[in-house]
Amino acid sequence: MSERAPFAWPVRVYYEDTDAGGVVQHTQYLKYLERARTEWLRACGIEQDALAREHGLLFVVTRIDVRYLRPARFNERLIATVLPAGRPGARLAFAQEIRRADGGPEPLVAARVEAACVERAGFRARRLPPFVLSRLQP
Amino acid sequence: MSERAPFAWPVRVYYEDTDAGGVVQHTQYLKYLERARTEWLRACGIEQDALAREHGLLFVVTRIDVRYLRPARFNERLIATVLPAGRPGARLAFAQEIRRADGGPEPLVAARVEAACVERAGFRARRLPPFVLSRLQP
Amino acid sequence: MSERAPFAWPVRVYYEDTDAGGVVQHTQYLKYLERARTEWLRACGIEQDALAREHGLLFVVTRIDVRYLRPARFNERLIATVLPAGRPGARLAFAQEIRRADGGPEPLVAARVEAACVERAGFRARRLPPFVLSRLQP
Amino acid sequence: MSERAPFAWPVRVYYEDTDAGGVVQHTQYLKYLERARTEWLRACGIEQDALAREHGLLFVVTRIDVRYLRPARFNERLIATVLPAGRPGARLAFAQEIRRADGGPEPLVAARVEAACVERAGFRARRLPPFVLSRLQP
Repeated sequence: MSERAPFAWPVRVYYEDTDAGGVVQHTQYLKYLERARTEWLRACGIEQDALAREHGLLFVVTRIDVRYLRPARFNERLIATVLPAGRPGARLAFAQEIRRADGGPEPLVAARVEAACVERAGFRARRLPPFVLSRLQP
Repeated sequence: MSERAPFAWPVRVYYEDTDAGGVVQHTQYLKYLERARTEWLRACGIEQDALAREHGLLFVVTRIDVRYLRPARFNERLIATVLPAGRPGARLAFAQEIRRADGGPEPLVAARVEAACVERAGFRARRLPPFVLSRLQP
Repeated sequence: MSERAPFAWPVRVYYEDTDAGGVVQHTQYLKYLERARTEWLRACGIEQDALAREHGLLFVVTRIDVRYLRPARFNERLIATVLPAGRPGARLAFAQEIRRADGGPEPLVAARVEAACVERAGFRARRLPPFVLSRLQP
Repeated sequence: MSERAPFAWPVRVYYEDTDAGGVVQHTQYLKYLERARTEWLRACGIEQDALAREHGLLFVVTRIDVRYLRPARFNERLIATVLPAGRPGARLAFAQEIRRADGGPEPLVAARVEAACVERAGFRARRLPPFVLSRLQP
């Protein structure tokens, strides 16, 4: 695991994100994690709409292993983090967490996420183009 | 208002559909209404994936006027109805309701929905093709 | 219509917000509008989690009349606006719009939204408490 | 792995479930899996609204390890399956898959899901009540 600080993206919990249990619906945390990965890519200089339009390439999630440790509630401010795990190649892997913006360091959610680059037409796996790879190197 | 019975489609309320207020999240009812319109089109012999693939056409919602009258709760069984309003042309209009499957006739939600046919590439409005129009005639 | 500038809240379109038509899914715009109303309330000094916890009160949407004028696409930056319409009482009414952050003034979506204050237990309508009313006065 | 056939629940892919990549949004499959678990519980004689109301108990997801193998598209009919893994105790574990209703046996999505029983107020873990356990025994 790197000693670098992970990329961090703030998230607010709205009513749309909660369920009748009074807490954030479990699939919604995965949307927060995806927003953070999208913003991490943007911070690396990669805009996914341009990647699709100009190169015909998409990132797709291929595996998520997520543990739900503590619930988040309506109106809380959260932080979703992104830490690349391993060298980017045909696949990208990330260690991600969600924690309270105002709370301690204990994560509410911890996940390992894997993504792949595919052709927009047909969803066949493709190696990451060199210009993408170079921007994702640490 | 027609004397025909409206098309009716059953819906179950899952946790994913509710929010921390303990009831169905207000935008979720509009997804139920869309499911019912999709199934009404299917019952008319129109599959939207074929319409997009073979004719390059999509239906898009252009206006919704929706009143939320009574809340629905987790685990309830609901009925979403579709009643075409007016003759189909460049636009389609529908009177739609949601009510409890096991309850009285009072609607929980009542909406008027307008949709248009557009080109998939560019979203320009198009008249409904004759084969679609003929299947949608009462 | 007031000459005051409306409250404005920025929104980014993520993959989670789009559908296979290539544009923002129609119910998702209503979530953007709700986020903007939540942030407007917060800017007025009203936190809905405290209102529920300390006063047993919720705001619920009672009517939305929304027109979809132009589509928004993946990765776009949008602005959702809130302009109170009429005096707050048992009901709140809002004129709301969504437009591109980088584009012209033409709205993509225009809506009139009505909300009511209800008891958390039972969803009976309640007048807005004086401390809420005073903060919402122009 | 048991030789019993898994519980199977049909799902239709609507526009609301897809994203601009043209396929089902990755978090949506997890909603399909939850619908199937809810219906499996119902088939076992357990209604979660009664469990919450009468016993103050909720099931919460504690871990999901999900692999996305092949994409599903708009309008497809899918089957979500549920196979209990191990004996129910403080935790429930499930092997779940999603495949095409009209296609071969290859799964589109394969997941291991863990859930726990918690008190509605406070989310403290609780053992499953005997009447629930007895209904969940194979």
